[in-house]
Amino acid sequence: MPNLFQSVSLARESLFSKTGKRSLFEKTYQYLHTSTPSLAKVVAVLYEAGAAAKEPRLLGCKENELGLRKFLEDRGHKYIVMSDKEKLLDQELPDTEVLITTPFHPAYVTAERIAKSPKLRLCVTAGVGSDHVDLHAANKAKITVAEVTGSNVVSVAEHVVMQILALVRNFVPAYTQVIKGEWNVGDIAKDSFDLENKVVGTVGAGRIGYRVLQRLKPFNCKELLYSDYQALSPEMESAVGAKRVTFEELIERCDVITINCPLHDKTRNLFNKQVFDKVKPGVYIVNTARGAIVDRDALVEAVKSGKVRGYAGDVWYPQPAPKDHPWRYMPRHAMTPHYSGTTLDAQKRYADGTKDILERYFDGRPFKPEDLIVHNGEFASKAYVQPEK
Amino acid sequence: MPNLFQSVSLARESLFSKTGKRSLFEKTYQYLHTSTPSLAKVVAVLYEAGAAAKEPRLLGCKENELGLRKFLEDRGHKYIVMSDKEKLLDQELPDTEVLITTPFHPAYVTAERIAKSPKLRLCVTAGVGSDHVDLHAANKAKITVAEVTGSNVVSVAEHVVMQILALVRNFVPAYTQVIKGEWNVGDIAKDSFDLENKVVGTVGAGRIGYRVLQRLKPFNCKELLYSDYQALSPEMESAVGAKRVTFEELIERCDVITINCPLHDKTRNLFNKQVFDKVKPGVYIVNTARGAIVDRDALVEAVKSGKVRGYAGDVWYPQPAPKDHPWRYMPRHAMTPHYSGTTLDAQKRYADGTKDILERYFDGRPFKPEDLIVHNGEFASKAYVQPEK
Repeated sequence: MPNLFQSVSLARESLFSKTGKRSLFEKTYQYLHTSTPSLAKVVAVLYEAGAAAKEPRLLGCKENELGLRKFLEDRGHKYIVMSDKEKLLDQELPDTEVLITTPFHPAYVTAERIAKSPKLRLCVTAGVGSDHVDLHAANKAKITVAEVTGSNVVSVAEHVVMQILALVRNFVPAYTQVIKGEWNVGDIAKDSFDLENKVVGTVGAGRIGYRVLQRLKPFNCKELLYSDYQALSPEMESAVGAKRVTFEELIERCDVITINCPLHDKTRNLFNKQVFDKVKPGVYIVNTARGAIVDRDALVEAVKSGKVRGYAGDVWYPQPAPKDHPWRYMPRHAMTPHYSGTTLDAQKRYADGTKDILERYFDGRPFKPEDLIVHNGEFASKAYVQPEK
Repeated sequence: MPNLFQSVSLARESLFSKTGKRSLFEKTYQYLHTSTPSLAKVVAVLYEAGAAAKEPRLLGCKENELGLRKFLEDRGHKYIVMSDKEKLLDQELPDTEVLITTPFHPAYVTAERIAKSPKLRLCVTAGVGSDHVDLHAANKAKITVAEVTGSNVVSVAEHVVMQILALVRNFVPAYTQVIKGEWNVGDIAKDSFDLENKVVGTVGAGRIGYRVLQRLKPFNCKELLYSDYQALSPEMESAVGAKRVTFEELIERCDVITINCPLHDKTRNLFNKQVFDKVKPGVYIVNTARGAIVDRDALVEAVKSGKVRGYAGDVWYPQPAPKDHPWRYMPRHAMTPHYSGTTLDAQKRYADGTKDILERYFDGRPFKPEDLIVHNGEFASKAYVQPEK
């Protein structure tokens, strides 16, 4: 059964969708939300930055609170920010209406947590990628899940190009020689290639994957390939010179594979032992999508055997990656913690975007369609095509 | 006074340039060179690769000899390959006719060495950048200096883009967290930016600088600037969206500066204290041109003070960089040993190009004009505009 807030909101949205304009009902709702003290409790789970929080542009950390405190408190809402993703969060959930999380320090919003959050109405991902929320459970509970679409796609695409180059050109061993006081050009050069004239493919050519293709175009790769559930338009394809192939063809032909698809039931463990058996020997793989798309131990084996010549990316499962996560210590990797989408430039964009989502919610205005992942009990984004379990 | 070989060769070239076709004289010269055993002594100074030499594509190391032994010996020439750049080299120079060196492991061909090399006729740089040869002294001795133009311009341009991204996105501290078992996203993110919307400029827009601009274009930088002694054509400018400015304007306006000019009298120590005083605070600098273009100690100061937020590149002076070179240990760098132009792909190109230069020399065919640095006692390349000392 929807609770009072949910009922009000559903009624409002239903009216809006039928009339296309704001009703008296909606204005009343908006008045209530903007004029009543502590009308809504908003909880944000953000990474702790410690001394780094002295950088005021580091908006997305616990200390800087996405810059939302004044905005929320001026409207009479209660705003609680934490970095704890377990006990403290569980304490707050029973009367939380809006929960803000990030992919960098994901609070896993499981079905169990949703069941214990009867007032939860809106989950906002400050960033892109809402797989840490159980979307089926959110749907059943009629919780809206929204993310700041596009807020860090450029940031991630740049990270992908950087890490492709770092692997193909063998950057890490070269840098390591420098700081160790060594100099052996032959040892580095023997594992160093140009990106030019290689076959590069992206699994997923959405907002991030396409931007990767755009940035790779002037590198004169032999071929740019992509696999996706839907084709790019002919104009978009020819603008980057990319060709759509099946996933099977992509993994068999590429010298470099980059993973840029969302995590859902069909992509979890997509790169498993069977796939690593089929990839071109010596392939480089860069995954800035989600750690769970790659089978942890199968990857370690494939890298150790040399079948995969190098692996990079910034996504892990779980996050933070434990100290003993084997990807930290496997050979020939160039991985980073999950931060590609949380550059200072990106933080400005997703802090602004989170505020926009909250304003629309409290003002009773419709969300931007592209920000919605699940809404009114349905998948709003085709990218998260998740068959019912 | 030119020696016999030089006289013969000069006469041949003079005839060719006047008649435009091969003379009987030239055919005789060619016959002598191709049919007489050990007619010429060819010495190559290449880096030692040790175990790495098992990679047969690592052509440019001492062990793999640029793949030239059979070609040279079949023609009756003597071929000596070493990695020693001092005593052993000095022993061989008195009767060496052709000397092959590389920028990665540069044998410094000083005026003193040239004076002790009366038979030296041709210096080939297997790669690009012949500043390790005293070009004035080579001119006076009528020694031809040629390099394999274009052989590694793509390799270096890719390295530049990689290192720009590594600095701007703060890759090295992020990677270091991973291998140390740490996870602190805030600490990395606070120094991490997108390249998008930054002002990026190249000092020098020649074969490498222009390729850097081409690769940067889709990153949607705020502005792409360049300074050079000659302007790009309007077509080339608009193809990459770059604007020509003075050196002074470039250093004052750029968030990222990349150095892509040759080393000569006017660029030696070009980046000195006076320049670091004028750069935009927090600038990133990437130098894959030559180490001596940057004042060693002035850079260390500028990085330590934070005026320069990060420095990368792969060129040092001297090379190999000594264990105690301060650039190895200054903060916020992402440097590598000098290998950007010696990827396995580049090695194939410059080994082929070196063979082509030797074939032209021994066959008495004209060199490719673009490969010539000094020839017939004159600077053949405008890039190395060096006023007489």
